[in-house]
Amino acid sequence: MSVFTEFTMMKNLHRAGGKIVLLVMDGLGGLPMEVGGATELETAHTPNLDRMASEATTGLSIPIRPGVEPGSGPAHLSLFSYDPVKYEIGRGVLEALGIGFALQASDLAARGNFATADADGTITDRRAGRISTDECIRLCEKLQAATGDILPGYEVIVKPVKEHRFVLVIRGDGLGGQLTETDPLVTGKKPLLVEDESGTPQGAHTAELVNKWVSAARAALADEPKANSLNLRGLASDPGLPRFPEVYGLRAAAIAVYPMYKGVARLVGMEVVDFEGERPTHEVDALEKAWDDYDFFFVHIKKTDSYGEDGNFAAKVHEIEEVDAVIPRILALQPGAVIVTGDHSTPAKLRSHSWHPVPTLLWSPTAMPDQVQSFGERACASGHLGIFHATNMIPQAMAHAGRLGRFGA
Amino acid sequence: MSVFTEFTMMKNLHRAGGKIVLLVMDGLGGLPMEVGGATELETAHTPNLDRMASEATTGLSIPIRPGVEPGSGPAHLSLFSYDPVKYEIGRGVLEALGIGFALQASDLAARGNFATADADGTITDRRAGRISTDECIRLCEKLQAATGDILPGYEVIVKPVKEHRFVLVIRGDGLGGQLTETDPLVTGKKPLLVEDESGTPQGAHTAELVNKWVSAARAALADEPKANSLNLRGLASDPGLPRFPEVYGLRAAAIAVYPMYKGVARLVGMEVVDFEGERPTHEVDALEKAWDDYDFFFVHIKKTDSYGEDGNFAAKVHEIEEVDAVIPRILALQPGAVIVTGDHSTPAKLRSHSWHPVPTLLWSPTAMPDQVQSFGERACASGHLGIFHATNMIPQAMAHAGRLGRFGA
Repeated sequence: MSVFTEFTMMKNLHRAGGKIVLLVMDGLGGLPMEVGGATELETAHTPNLDRMASEATTGLSIPIRPGVEPGSGPAHLSLFSYDPVKYEIGRGVLEALGIGFALQASDLAARGNFATADADGTITDRRAGRISTDECIRLCEKLQAATGDILPGYEVIVKPVKEHRFVLVIRGDGLGGQLTETDPLVTGKKPLLVEDESGTPQGAHTAELVNKWVSAARAALADEPKANSLNLRGLASDPGLPRFPEVYGLRAAAIAVYPMYKGVARLVGMEVVDFEGERPTHEVDALEKAWDDYDFFFVHIKKTDSYGEDGNFAAKVHEIEEVDAVIPRILALQPGAVIVTGDHSTPAKLRSHSWHPVPTLLWSPTAMPDQVQSFGERACASGHLGIFHATNMIPQAMAHAGRLGRFGA
Repeated sequence: MSVFTEFTMMKNLHRAGGKIVLLVMDGLGGLPMEVGGATELETAHTPNLDRMASEATTGLSIPIRPGVEPGSGPAHLSLFSYDPVKYEIGRGVLEALGIGFALQASDLAARGNFATADADGTITDRRAGRISTDECIRLCEKLQAATGDILPGYEVIVKPVKEHRFVLVIRGDGLGGQLTETDPLVTGKKPLLVEDESGTPQGAHTAELVNKWVSAARAALADEPKANSLNLRGLASDPGLPRFPEVYGLRAAAIAVYPMYKGVARLVGMEVVDFEGERPTHEVDALEKAWDDYDFFFVHIKKTDSYGEDGNFAAKVHEIEEVDAVIPRILALQPGAVIVTGDHSTPAKLRSHSWHPVPTLLWSPTAMPDQVQSFGERACASGHLGIFHATNMIPQAMAHAGRLGRFGA
């Protein structure tokens, strides 16, 4: 069964219905810090999410494959119903989309990291001392001036992202291949050359162009005190995914603070809503304002993941409680279906993304209320959704919102 | 998604981490003997397994497909993460590997059963009265002498296995096809001729060779009191599976008493550990001794299945308790992850392998402890692993042992 066949089926089944909210608390799933303890979500006081769980159908979702720790991009593709093992997307593409850069289909994009190197080029700091975003902007302007036209027949675009991170885009015909990264991944080593693993003339040509640019860019940075070198990762082009709005017949909006999540939403054809502020309450302000203009809303909460990665159990608990507090405002909009989930687990105990299945609820007036009465990892294990692949979530939300017709007579 | 792509993903993700133990109690799953009763595993006093379950993530595994009663070979392939519906392995190949026979890629192997026939060839006992293994050795030597060189251009090798069972290997070029078996499966019928279902010239040629050998072999046995006939089953060549140690980056060892299980482990590239004794405690002796030399240990307990097939509920319960008693020794080795499961169910009530999902626990310091507090069929149904396909187990153990990196950035 190909993905295209599943998507074709969806295209043939969708119809008008209620609005759908996909509320993603990044890295939601957790672990007890000690034997016999509770997870972050189980610890949080969440009367609104618990009431939703008691009215909803619940379960545990597997983002990629059982046991596979998800990266942010693939995990979100999966939530949007695109199997990330089938649709592999380069990090450069995600970063470019994340900063709102209008990537063209033939562009090659890479994620760049400013770095510090010693005299012989050995990397001593892979993040250049985490320079400020202002410094990143200055460095990108410097690189743009020095390297913008050094590749004859190609346009080079260098854009800042945040801190030590930037995006490189090479625009022109005939780019491609399977390109390796320059980052040695540890300090004390020299950067690598970009190589092509596709074995195509196009790939060899592209690798040569990129290496030429990297060399010129490092020369232009040579006099910088901190960011005197750089690395490129995730070199790839837009994979041309099926459009989410077409597959499901939904006017789809993304409400997110961080560039990466806006990027992955754009990649599947969602529109990104601009708004002021960074807290969950500001995101719900934006949701209320955009409510009449769209059918589907992806709302992304970042800090749950950040606090998990910091190992800050209490702050993650608090962030979940902040989200709980805005739930009544979401339900007051009378959605047809609301999914509350995470893109993956980020247990404070592990200070990292992890492979553990993610607590998930699907609330809707047409949901089968299972026996689960609270929203938590252990509670959801006995829910009606079972332990399921995250790609199955959107079709079920579509059904609950009355947006999928009958398959067969 | 092809299996090869999944394996390629695993190859790209694996990294160094803790050691993994896959402890298989053959035929572990059971049934209550009467309404309202407990299963073998639920009846057994298993304080150590229960404590593991309370700290572990648990579930029920489906070896082949829902409702499909597993054979031993396919069920183990599945535990090793090879979908046995995709990788069909002949029983002859498994038996040959099981007795340590160095099978070559082009060899054709068949499982042989000595049988008793009446004057017109009708089978009266499909196991020749379960003759002794010594008798089997004598008969194989007799066949080797009488038929070793009757197929011009081919070498014929006849090796004893156990009791009435032997292995036939035909070695030479151009063997193949999809070959049927000679065993009529019931007494009172004549054996069948081997036929080729592939429709290839190679297959027709091979069927002809095999039938010629069978005919000569039966003639050589004609004067035997019991084993005056034979049947061939599972005629096939080594399918050339991806190597387990390469797919997962694990130095992998098999600790098993019976030939079949050593064979299926060898088939995927595991090394078989030699040791003295046949009881669970001897197998754990071997585990302790081999601990430093490998990263992954497949430990196979046979008697749980044998007693299930005998319909001996009490003896199966006792065997499970013997295994429980050695658990502390396994945990004392400080593994990164331990899977305790069966390859399939063998309820004493049914005196047979069965399709029922198999209670499974995955113990690890990084496991999500679900609500399951004891190790049993009903308890595991509400665990965090859900009802899952057995092929998913190894990747999850890899993750819990810290041996899988992140998919995507």
